Order: sequence, then structure tokens, then C-alpha cells
Amino acid sequence: MIILNKSEIEALIDRSTIAPAIKSAFVATRQGQVELPPVGHITFPDHNADCHIKYGHMRHQDNFVIKVATGFPGNADLGMPTGNGMVLVLSAITGALQAVLHDEMRLTDVRTGIAGALASQALARPKARRVLVLGTGPQTVEQVLAHRAILGDQTEFSIWGRSAERATACAAALGASTAPDLQAAVSQADIIVTATGAKTPLFPADWVMPGTHITAVGADAPGKQELDIALVARADRLVVDLVTQCAHHGEVSHAIATGMVHPNTLVELGAIFAGEAPGRQSTSDITIADLTGIAAQDIAIAQCILAAHHS
Amino acid sequence: MIILNKSEIEALIDRSTIAPAIKSAFVATRQGQVELPPVGHITFPDHNADCHIKYGHMRHQDNFVIKVATGFPGNADLGMPTGNGMVLVLSAITGALQAVLHDEMRLTDVRTGIAGALASQALARPKARRVLVLGTGPQTVEQVLAHRAILGDQTEFSIWGRSAERATACAAALGASTAPDLQAAVSQADIIVTATGAKTPLFPADWVMPGTHITAVGADAPGKQELDIALVARADRLVVDLVTQCAHHGEVSHAIATGMVHPNTLVELGAIFAGEAPGRQSTSDITIADLTGIAAQDIAIAQCILAAHHS
Repeated sequence: MIILNKSEIEALIDRSTIAPAIKSAFVATRQGQVELPPVGHITFPDHNADCHIKYGHMRHQDNFVIKVATGFPGNADLGMPTGNGMVLVLSAITGALQAVLHDEMRLTDVRTGIAGALASQALARPKARRVLVLGTGPQTVEQVLAHRAILGDQTEFSIWGRSAERATACAAALGASTAPDLQAAVSQADIIVTATGAKTPLFPADWVMPGTHITAVGADAPGKQELDIALVARADRLVVDLVTQCAHHGEVSHAIATGMVHPNTLVELGAIFAGEAPGRQSTSDITIADLTGIAAQDIAIAQCILAAHHS
Repeated sequence: MIILNKSEIEALIDRSTIAPAIKSAFVATRQGQVELPPVGHITFPDHNADCHIKYGHMRHQDNFVIKVATGFPGNADLGMPTGNGMVLVLSAITGALQAVLHDEMRLTDVRTGIAGALASQALARPKARRVLVLGTGPQTVEQVLAHRAILGDQTEFSIWGRSAERATACAAALGASTAPDLQAAVSQADIIVTATGAKTPLFPADWVMPGTHITAVGADAPGKQELDIALVARADRLVVDLVTQCAHHGEVSHAIATGMVHPNTLVELGAIFAGEAPGRQSTSDITIADLTGIAAQDIAIAQCILAAHHS
């Protein structure tokens, strides 16, 4: 039985091998090849905290994955990360525990970054080069690293944050520029990535130019919102990771609630990757990828880490 | 973070400290002090196998528990146990992983034995001495060890199995006698413990004498049955670990399905332990404890193992 801690896992992260595995996981999900039971959930009202258990099995693969993720907001006061967790890998042939990946949510951050970059690659204009990332947290770092790995070194990044100070520090650490004027940055970007915990839209719809692609990853739970409903309604292509999940609490949920978007206009990312549905259809299309995170991503990245450990 | 394997856990098992903790866990469950979300479940149709995830939190305790249990029948052909699993202990204050108890189902076996003995202690006649155990598997061993620990050394055990050979070996290993004549053994026992995987009743109702207590632990999933419906209907006191669970797949479920028993006659073991409901009311009563296993037992035993590790 293999036990890996966060730093051991860090050393095994290779985005160039994880990205195709995650892409395949989206296709497998789309094709009904992944058993994904309902997410388990337990709450801790005394701490306004909770724990989610996501688990699933890609049919005919020889292992399956159980991911435990905790969210304890009060940890911030203790100087600890609010998110924590681990990934268990078990044999789908004998049921035996194969590995405990005690990643403290690291793999969730990485797989979210990679899914964002894969969505941008699939939906942005072919020569998209200027990437604007909104947010200054760990997920901003992940989005930049993943977009750089997948779109190539010539990609240019600028960072905007509600705190100019944090944006400057984040940009410096990533070799990116800052975007002090949000309106100008939004208007000039080929790709906009929103990676904040915002509960209200970050910018108005009319700042966005035709041809822009937006990848939004912040709306991972009810009550969160990064994009203007008018922008979602205006998009020429609305791509989601999972229709049911995004219609429930993704960016598109707000537009659906107002009746401005109908769920049957949503296209799943796996369908785009599988070639079953077209993505962008013109260089002037505005495209949006609304990503809430699916268990198949967790399965794929856990398997990549284990394979790297064995190699 | 603590990681203990099966043999390390084995060395920390002390039934005299675990028993009162499990008793308290039943009381806490009865009193609504344990949050027990629905059990997670994933199946592996290619192997006729499955995995259950049971988890819960005793309110105001500083940790919570996630138990993963797998059942892969095909393991028998590989010379491996069909059941496997582990127990995760996490902080209910920060969400951090505190321990991985890689017990391979050992703690489930032990807590099931202890709950059986606690039920027998609470419901059998005060001077009950002769314990007949039906079954020859690991759970028979657990029931004998737990009954001996809780009822005292003067308790006499006899073992019956569908295979006389296995019954002889099991009895010899436990310092018990064998019960070659099942009818005579059933009629003479003060306490009968059924610990088999039977799908049809093990003996007819009329073999059982007035005053007998029966603890049945084998019916842990739909389709299993150890006791004659007529015996369940004849009992003066029907005690269950959890009404909803036992009415679904416990021994009492079969009698409920035929209309011979009404669910509102069932008494929960926690109510007996808490003194909220009477148990046996006469030395001639036939009492039955139908135990399907509840997550609060898993929480209690995991905490005892961790406490023993720290002491």
C-alpha cells in the first residue's frame, strides 16, 4: 500500500501527461463510461464547515477513487488552509486499498487548472495569446501554469485582483504582468479566466469583445457567481463540464434561473473533446466554459500520480 | 498523521474499553446526537462486487469517521478475504486527516462482536450461562471473545456449523464445545448467537425454549435471513440496532413483510441502554436482538483505537 504526502505528490505532477488523461476522463464521462454515485456530504454546523466525498469508477479500469474534501472556513483564523483532503485509490478487482494520496487538496487545484486550460484550448480562437486571469489565489497560479503548459510558452498572462497588492505579488511570482485597468484588460484579452470566490459578477458583459473566450472556475458551490448574467446570455457557445451540476450551481445556473438561458443549449466539454459537438464556430464568437469540477478528473489525476510513482 | 495497519490495530484492541464506548454510541444514536448521512455505495458489476462508504459524526466530538468497506466475492478464488476496507479519522475542528486505520475490516468484525455481546448482556436472563453460537467464520470467533469479555469467564460456549469439521476446528480454537445435535443445543441454550451468511432460517421456531435470548448478526444486507419468521413473530421483545435499517434488511424485515410484525413494536438497543425502554420483562420471555451494524459503532471503535495508540 502506497502512502504519499503532499510534497511527494507535488514531485510527481506532470501536466503534460495529466492533461490528456483528464481530457479522456471528460470524454468517458460524456459517454456514460464513468459510474459517479451521488456526492456524500456531512456538515459541522458548529464550525460552518463541511466534508464532501466524491467517488467513482471508470468502467473496465482496474482501480477506483474516493476523494474526501473538507472545507473549514475557521482555519483561516488559525493560519491554516480552509480546504483539506485526500484521495484513496482502491482496486476495482479485489477492493484492496492501493494508495492514500494525502494531497491536502493539491490534486483538486491541479486538475481544476488543467481542465480550465483544456477548455480554453478547445474554445479560444486558434491564435489566442493574451490570457487575463482574475483572482490572486492558488487557483490563479494553477490556471497560469496549466495554460502555459497547454497553450505554449508564447502565451502572455496578466493578473487582476481585487487587491492590487496581491495581484502584483501574484503576477511577479508567475512571470506575468498586472492588469490595473480591468476594463481595458477585459477588452484586450483573447482568453479570460475567472478564478475567484466571487458572489457577484466581476465585470459587465459589454466590456467583453467579440471573439473572446472565457473560462470560469470559481462557481463550485451554490451562491457563487463571477460572470454577468447578460454575458452568459450573450455567449454564442456555452460549454459546461456537467449539465446537471452547472445548471444547479454553475455560472449558467443564474442565467437559467432568470429564463435567459435554456439548459438544452448547454454543451458538455466531453462532447467537444469527443468531436460530438462543435465548439467555436467563428472568430467573432464569444465562448464560455463553466467548470464546476467532476469526479472523473479526480480519478484521472490520481491514476497519473500513481503511474508516475510506479515508473 | 497516524497510519496503522491491521496487526498494529490488533495490538490496540481492548474489548473492556471498547464495549462501554460502543454502548454510549448506541445511546447517542438513539438520542439524535450522531449525524449519519446516507451510506454511499458503488457497484462493480463485472465482479459482482461493491463498496460502501459509511460516515458520521457524534455531535460535539472533535473528530469524525469515514469507513470504506469493500465486498469482492471473487477474492475467495484468489485465497483472499472477500471483505476489505479502512477507517479514516478526521478532525471535526479543522477537517485535517488524523489517521488512516487500514484494518482490512478487522474493526467491523470486532465492533459487531461487541455489540452482539452487549445486546445479549442487556436482554438475556441474569444468570444466562450457556451460549450457543451458530456459524464457524471470523464473526463466530468475535462473538465468543466479546461474550466472554462481557459476560465473564464462567460463560460456556458451544459452536454449531453447517460443516461439522469446521465447527470442531472453530470450537477447539476457542476452548468451546461443539453442538452436533442442533435441536438439543438450541433447546438447552440460554443465549443463541447467529453469525452466519444464511439466506434461509437455521432452525424452526418451536425448538426455542421460553426464556431464551437470541442475538442475530448475520443479516447485514438484503436477502439474508437466519431466523424463522415464526420465531421473530413469537418473540416477546424485538430489539434492533436501528429501526429503519432492520425494517429494510434485518431479520425483522421478513416478518414485517408478511405482516406478522409491525415496525412500531421494535425497540432500539440504544433505548434499552439509555433506560428509556424496558428489555426482558420475565424469565420466560423470548428476546431477540437483530443487529445490522451502525456507523456510530465504527466511530466509537476508531476513537478507542486512536486513544489506545496515543496512551
